[in-house]
Amino acid sequence: MATEVLRGESGLRGNNIDELFHPSSVAVVGATPKQGHVGYVIMVNLLGKFKGKVFLVNPRYDSINGVKCYKGLTDVDDEVDLAVIAVPAPVVPQVVADAVKKGVKALIIISGGFSEVGDEGRRLEDEVRSIIKDSKVRVLGPNCIGVYNAENGLDTFFLPEDRMGRPPKGPIALISQSGAVAAAILDWASRRKLGIGLAVNYGNKIDVSESELLEYFAGNPNVKVITIYMEGLKYPGEGLRFLETARKVAQVKPVIVYKAGRTKASVHAVASHTAALAGDYEIYRGAFRQAGLIEANSVREMFDLAKALATQPLPRGKRVLVLTDSGGMGIQAVDTLSTLGLEVPELPETMQTMLRKYLPPLAIVRNPVDVTGSATDEYYKIVLDSILPTSYVDMALIVALMQIPGLTPNLVNYIIDAKRYGKPMVVVSFGGSALMEKFNDALENSGIPVYATPDRGARALWALVEYSRIRKMLREEVE
Amino acid sequence: MATEVLRGESGLRGNNIDELFHPSSVAVVGATPKQGHVGYVIMVNLLGKFKGKVFLVNPRYDSINGVKCYKGLTDVDDEVDLAVIAVPAPVVPQVVADAVKKGVKALIIISGGFSEVGDEGRRLEDEVRSIIKDSKVRVLGPNCIGVYNAENGLDTFFLPEDRMGRPPKGPIALISQSGAVAAAILDWASRRKLGIGLAVNYGNKIDVSESELLEYFAGNPNVKVITIYMEGLKYPGEGLRFLETARKVAQVKPVIVYKAGRTKASVHAVASHTAALAGDYEIYRGAFRQAGLIEANSVREMFDLAKALATQPLPRGKRVLVLTDSGGMGIQAVDTLSTLGLEVPELPETMQTMLRKYLPPLAIVRNPVDVTGSATDEYYKIVLDSILPTSYVDMALIVALMQIPGLTPNLVNYIIDAKRYGKPMVVVSFGGSALMEKFNDALENSGIPVYATPDRGARALWALVEYSRIRKMLREEVE
Repeated sequence: MATEVLRGESGLRGNNIDELFHPSSVAVVGATPKQGHVGYVIMVNLLGKFKGKVFLVNPRYDSINGVKCYKGLTDVDDEVDLAVIAVPAPVVPQVVADAVKKGVKALIIISGGFSEVGDEGRRLEDEVRSIIKDSKVRVLGPNCIGVYNAENGLDTFFLPEDRMGRPPKGPIALISQSGAVAAAILDWASRRKLGIGLAVNYGNKIDVSESELLEYFAGNPNVKVITIYMEGLKYPGEGLRFLETARKVAQVKPVIVYKAGRTKASVHAVASHTAALAGDYEIYRGAFRQAGLIEANSVREMFDLAKALATQPLPRGKRVLVLTDSGGMGIQAVDTLSTLGLEVPELPETMQTMLRKYLPPLAIVRNPVDVTGSATDEYYKIVLDSILPTSYVDMALIVALMQIPGLTPNLVNYIIDAKRYGKPMVVVSFGGSALMEKFNDALENSGIPVYATPDRGARALWALVEYSRIRKMLREEVE
Repeated sequence: MATEVLRGESGLRGNNIDELFHPSSVAVVGATPKQGHVGYVIMVNLLGKFKGKVFLVNPRYDSINGVKCYKGLTDVDDEVDLAVIAVPAPVVPQVVADAVKKGVKALIIISGGFSEVGDEGRRLEDEVRSIIKDSKVRVLGPNCIGVYNAENGLDTFFLPEDRMGRPPKGPIALISQSGAVAAAILDWASRRKLGIGLAVNYGNKIDVSESELLEYFAGNPNVKVITIYMEGLKYPGEGLRFLETARKVAQVKPVIVYKAGRTKASVHAVASHTAALAGDYEIYRGAFRQAGLIEANSVREMFDLAKALATQPLPRGKRVLVLTDSGGMGIQAVDTLSTLGLEVPELPETMQTMLRKYLPPLAIVRNPVDVTGSATDEYYKIVLDSILPTSYVDMALIVALMQIPGLTPNLVNYIIDAKRYGKPMVVVSFGGSALMEKFNDALENSGIPVYATPDRGARALWALVEYSRIRKMLREEVE
C-alpha cells in the first residue's frame, strides 16, 4: 500500500499516465483469431478504429487475419507506447517483464485471476508489482476493462459493438470502479448520443488509482465534467488521497460521484465485488461534501447532471424562470426546484402586465409562466426574450410538450437564440413521437440539455447552482 | 357543490357512467372539415378507429369529407349514446339542451371557456348545470380532453397521431386532473408499448368527478391497476368522498397516486392551473396512506409501479433474491431494496454449497447471487430453479446486462419458465443495443416487467409488498 501511494504521488519514474489514453502505438498481447475471445475483440476493435499503430503479439501465430503477429513484445521492431495484456494470469508476469525490457510506457492488464481470486492470485499480483517497481512503466489493472477514448479510437472494452454501443466524442469523462457498470453505461450512452468521450475502469489498481485518473482528467482540456462510479475505497490512506485530489480538481471542473453500497445490507456485497470497504455511507457523504463533489443518487442521475454541467454556464443566483405549455408540468418542476432550495420568484407586476399583452387570455404570467395548450413557438420566444435578460431570474427551465398542436420544430431556434443571454437553460420534453425526438435531438445538438420529466430537469439546474456554490467555496478557501 | 356530491352519490337518474367509455354510438357536435381544429381531429380519430356508429353534427354542413352531417343532435335519426361536444362555450348550453331532449345518455364537453376563465364562464357553467339537473344525462367536463379507450377506439383526445401516439390495450387505467399531462403520458406510453388501455381527464367536473371515475374503474374487469395524476381536491367534501372511495377500491385493486403541487412554492401554481387546493402535502400524504393508496413520486414512477402491479402476483413476504451478472448493479439494487424496508437475506449454507457446485469459481452465492461477467443463460436458470421455489425468498430481482457475451435471448425463456413458482419477478436491463431491446420486449410481452436501472426495479418490488400490506390491512378492518 505504501508503495502504491508513493508511486502515485511521487511519480518517481517521471512518466505521467497520458500514454494510457493517447499512445501512438499499441500492442495487443494475447491477440487471437478465436472469435469471441477477449484478445480477439480487443484486436478487432483496435485494428478497426485506433488512429495509431497496432501490433499483435502471440507466440502461437505468425499472422492473424492477414496482420503480422509477433512472438513477444521484445520482438516488435518499433516503439510500443502501450501494451494491452489479455493473457492468462500466470503468463502476465513474464509479459510485464518483457514490456519493461522493451521500454513500453504503459500497460493495461485486462486479465483477471489476481488478488480478486485468492492467495495464488495475490502472489502473482505481488510478482507483477515487484517487476514494475524500479521501472518507469505505468500500469492500469489488472482485472479491468481498461480504457475507452472516442477521440482516437483507443478501446480495450472487450465487448463487440453489437453487445455494447460506443458513445460519441464528448466532454464527459467516466471513472468506474466496476467494469460491467462501465460497459453498461457506455452502451446506454451510445443510444442516447451522450458524449462520454473518455472512460476508464481500473480493476485491482496495483499502480494507477482513481485519484491519479481524476487528476489526469482534470488536466485534460477535452474533459469538462468528470463522473465517478464508486463502490468504496480500500484503505483510509486511499480515501484521504482521493478526497484531497477531488478537492483540488473540483476547483477547476465539476466532479460528480455516484456511490453505490450505501446501506448496511449492501456492504457485504461490495466487499465480495470489489474488495472495497463500503463503510458508513454518512461518512462518505460528509467527506464528498467537504471535498466539493456533487453527489448523484443513481447512474442515470449522474449523467443528467453531467449533461447540464458540460453545456451550460453557471448561474449567478438560484432564481428560476419556469416556462411551460402545461400547468401540470410546471407544478411538478416547482415541486422539485423548491425542494432542492431553488426559487421560482413571482415576476414583478410590470413584467406580468407586459406578458399579458402578448399572451393569450388564459395564460398565467406569475411564474411559472404557462402559455397553455394553445401555445405557439412565438409565445415561448416572447417570454424568453422579455424575461431571461432581466435581473429577475438567473436561469430557465422550459417545458415544451410537443403534443400541443401549435408548436413546431422552429421552437428550437428560439430557444437557441436565447443562449445569448448567458443564462443556463434546460428543456423538459415528455412523450414519444418522432416529432418530439427530432425536437430533442436538435436541442441537444445545439448544447441545450433535454430531460424527459420536470424533476430531472429541475435537478440538473440544481447541479449548476450547487457547482457554482462549490467553486466559490473552494476558491475562497484557497485565497 | 352539494348538487355535485348528491348527483354522484345517489345516482338519482339511474344511469351509471359506462356510456362515457363504452357507447354504441357517438355524435361529434362541432365536427368540421377544417384541419387542425379540435372538432376535426376528434371526428377523424373516431371515424377511423371507433368500433360503433359515428354521427357528425354541425348546422353549417350537409356532409363532411363525404360523411353525412346533421344540423343538430335532435336531427340524428338513430339513438345516440354519447355526444362529444367541441363547440364554442356560448353555444354549449343549447347543445346540452338538445342532448337532453334527444335522450343522449352521456356527454363529454371538450369545450373550454367556463368557470376556468371567470364570471361569464361561470354563468355558462351554471346554465349547463341547471339544464342537466333533472335529466338522466351524465356529463364529463367541461374544459377537458375526455376519454381514451384502446379497446373500442373511443378517443376524444384532440391531438393527431403524429403529435400524440396512442398506447396499446392493457390493464392500466389513468385518471388525470391535467389534460396536457394525460396527453403527454399517453404519447410516452405509446412509445414504450405500455398498456394504458383507458384514460380520462375530467376538467371542471360539473357532474362526473374523480371519485366516480375511480369507482367505475374499480368495477371494470379489464382494469387491473388504477393510476391517478392529481394536483389537488377542491373542497373538504370532495376530498373526503375521494378518500372513502379510494379506501373501498384499494381493497380490490391497487390504486397509485402521484400528487403534484407538494410544496408551498407550487400551491399558487396549482390554484392557477386547476383551481384546486394543493393544500398541505403532509395532510394529503397521511390521508393517502390511510386510504390505502400507493404513492408515487413522479409520473414515470407511477407507471413503473403500475407495470409490476398489473403483471405480478403479490409476494407473501419481503425477502428478495437478487440475481445479477454485475456485482455493481446488485449492490445498487440492495441499496434501494433495503432503504425501502425489503430484505435481501443471506442464503443458507446448504444452498450456497449447492450453487457453488454449478456456478463458476468467481461467482458470489450469498445473495445477491452474482453469476459474474462470464455468465451464461444456464447460470440464471440454475439459480432461479434452485432458489425461487424454496421458502427462503418471496420474490426475485434479476439483473441481466446483455452486454455480457455469454447471454442470449434464450435467457428470456428461462425467466418465463420461472413464473411457475408463483413469485413476483422483475428484470433490470440497462444499455442500448438492439439485442437488449429485443430481450426487453420479449420479457414484457410475456408479462415480466423490465426496468432500466436497479433502483427502479427495486421500487417496483416495493410496490408489490406495499399493496400486499395495504390489502391485508383494509380487509382486516372490514372483517
